[in-house]
Amino acid sequence: MTTLRTPGPTVGVVGGGQLGRMLAEAAAPLGVEVVVLDPTPDCPAALVARDQIVADFDDEAGIRELAARADVLTFEIELADQDVLERVSEDSGTPVHPDPATLETIHDKLVQKRELEAAGVPVPPFREVEGADDVRAAIDDYGAPVMLKARTGGYDGRGNVPVESKGEAEAALESVAGPAMVESFVEFEREVSVIAVEGEGEIATFPIGENVHVDEILRETIVPARSSDAVEERAREVAADVLEVMAGRGVYGIELFETSAGEILLNEIAPRPHNSGHWTIEGARSSQFEQHVRAVLGWPLAATDLRSPTVMTNLLGDVDDEREAELGDLDRILETRGGNLHWYGKRQARPLRKMGHVTVTGDIDADVEDLLETARDLEDAVTFRS
Amino acid sequence: MTTLRTPGPTVGVVGGGQLGRMLAEAAAPLGVEVVVLDPTPDCPAALVARDQIVADFDDEAGIRELAARADVLTFEIELADQDVLERVSEDSGTPVHPDPATLETIHDKLVQKRELEAAGVPVPPFREVEGADDVRAAIDDYGAPVMLKARTGGYDGRGNVPVESKGEAEAALESVAGPAMVESFVEFEREVSVIAVEGEGEIATFPIGENVHVDEILRETIVPARSSDAVEERAREVAADVLEVMAGRGVYGIELFETSAGEILLNEIAPRPHNSGHWTIEGARSSQFEQHVRAVLGWPLAATDLRSPTVMTNLLGDVDDEREAELGDLDRILETRGGNLHWYGKRQARPLRKMGHVTVTGDIDADVEDLLETARDLEDAVTFRS
Repeated sequence: MTTLRTPGPTVGVVGGGQLGRMLAEAAAPLGVEVVVLDPTPDCPAALVARDQIVADFDDEAGIRELAARADVLTFEIELADQDVLERVSEDSGTPVHPDPATLETIHDKLVQKRELEAAGVPVPPFREVEGADDVRAAIDDYGAPVMLKARTGGYDGRGNVPVESKGEAEAALESVAGPAMVESFVEFEREVSVIAVEGEGEIATFPIGENVHVDEILRETIVPARSSDAVEERAREVAADVLEVMAGRGVYGIELFETSAGEILLNEIAPRPHNSGHWTIEGARSSQFEQHVRAVLGWPLAATDLRSPTVMTNLLGDVDDEREAELGDLDRILETRGGNLHWYGKRQARPLRKMGHVTVTGDIDADVEDLLETARDLEDAVTFRS
Repeated sequence: MTTLRTPGPTVGVVGGGQLGRMLAEAAAPLGVEVVVLDPTPDCPAALVARDQIVADFDDEAGIRELAARADVLTFEIELADQDVLERVSEDSGTPVHPDPATLETIHDKLVQKRELEAAGVPVPPFREVEGADDVRAAIDDYGAPVMLKARTGGYDGRGNVPVESKGEAEAALESVAGPAMVESFVEFEREVSVIAVEGEGEIATFPIGENVHVDEILRETIVPARSSDAVEERAREVAADVLEVMAGRGVYGIELFETSAGEILLNEIAPRPHNSGHWTIEGARSSQFEQHVRAVLGWPLAATDLRSPTVMTNLLGDVDDEREAELGDLDRILETRGGNLHWYGKRQARPLRKMGHVTVTGDIDADVEDLLETARDLEDAVTFRS
């Protein structure tokens, strides 16, 4: 039985970037307080959170302080240290959601894929790489190209190297520089993702989003995805299967490939709210951030259905070098019917850094092609190059 | 041309109650910072705002500090002192929106009604009251009952006294205890309100909401109102006319009577976001709070159209005496599809105090009767009486 007082429960969040900020924005109306831990003074989440503990993500003393102030701990970055979180949680009695063991599973892409495959989640064919021979064997088995991936530390496509031929195996392996795995290269029809929520004795999945990546960085999410109903259903089924493998409550961003045959294959998992779920703030009946707050507190989950067609576009740092961030002439964004600006509060713009996003919601019968065109126009209309 | 940096512009708000809190919640995604001034330490808005200055609403030193930290000043309570605001604004160069002169106009209901009538806004017949003779004359002119109103200081129906007969005039006047006016008692079909926004060279009005009051305190707002299209159009027209009288940018809550003949008459004006506009957070394409932020900064206004039928219900302190606030068993609210909880972060529950609200959004073709029933069930399901 959920009751509410003032102050309400406190969620301690390792990481205070835009995800932590939007988490705090979603927590406030629920009477839930957020304290974040982040090494950057006045991090993006600091504006909205009750407080910030300035400390590194794996700083044990800092995390102990966070645990002492919180009713539950969570994280908004994979850089959180599972061992420290486990130790602090055990000593303090403050639970961590999702379970830090999930971080460990996800952290190593080989371990992750093995566990998911064992649970019946469809994954592209893959193998462990101990040397160039394994890469060449993969080319024999799957055909070229194959995708060589660093087992740990990859992010926004970093650490992923396509290998076109056996002759490139050695050089590719050197560029990855560390434990690796190799996967069949999926010729996908489109990339989609499902935001899935593990609650207390219940799960929920949001409608699938179609993701447009350029240079392996997410640019747009389109909802509804331009997929068939069967693909939508299958993707949400796969997402539910993924939750079976993940331990502990919370939101997971599950990136999938849709092949031209309409098959769904797992791509990546983030054990936290995900960029491809930002559309839910305006587009769905609840947001992924509200759901994460509810889930980690063990509160009932909310409905996830689409309110109206919605497109999200990231506002990336379109600069050549780091500079103080100033986004010029927002009027087009502010004047667009159904346009919603989300500014992340970062002082510095860097090339392709995520500085904010814009969501464009349409009427119930809106065509996503029109919304996508509007979103792209808005993204093109603004610049950090003064 | 609107540009955005970090930190973004700062709005200084006199008052830090739930309106200030929801204003800060709406400001955060826009990169706009909010500093509030409020005498209660850790006031409701403090959780979300950048900072709180603890000072009385008319404390000149406090308001000077607020002005020094803000790009624009605004207020979320009518108790703001127009003279202090004007003086501080002049000295500091920090503008105040709406114009403090508007506070003065609104503060005195007689002055307000005279100015509105002169501008062609339909108001119930009224007259100044200097003694019981004026009340009796009003009964002769308008018929009994008439509504005797304190010219200043009324709020949530306080200071309004129906007078049923000439014999009651003396007693009624004594109970009002101060300068008064008297109005014809409007036999209304329903009470409606329009949230209207004065921007920089533009205005906007939201769809009208139908308000249910009990004991002169707002209980529910229903959108769309169960009025005809003609009434909706007329009400928005009247709201636009009211804006002509009000000076300075910002959101105004304009309460109206709809008579059985479908006529619209002005009831009350609040020069700020209003309880009857809380439905806009989920129900409209932009919220009254985002619009107020945009308006006071001189940014373009957003679209105001309804996203889907929506009902808002207040969570009032259902207690007999003041006590520490604990809202029991929220699960029904949290589990309801389209139910959205807004908790104001007040530590103490008092009889009929506004502690939070719940918004229930429906599908595009939802029947407001069903939503109203759901909202009432939710309101009934929770209690502050442990």
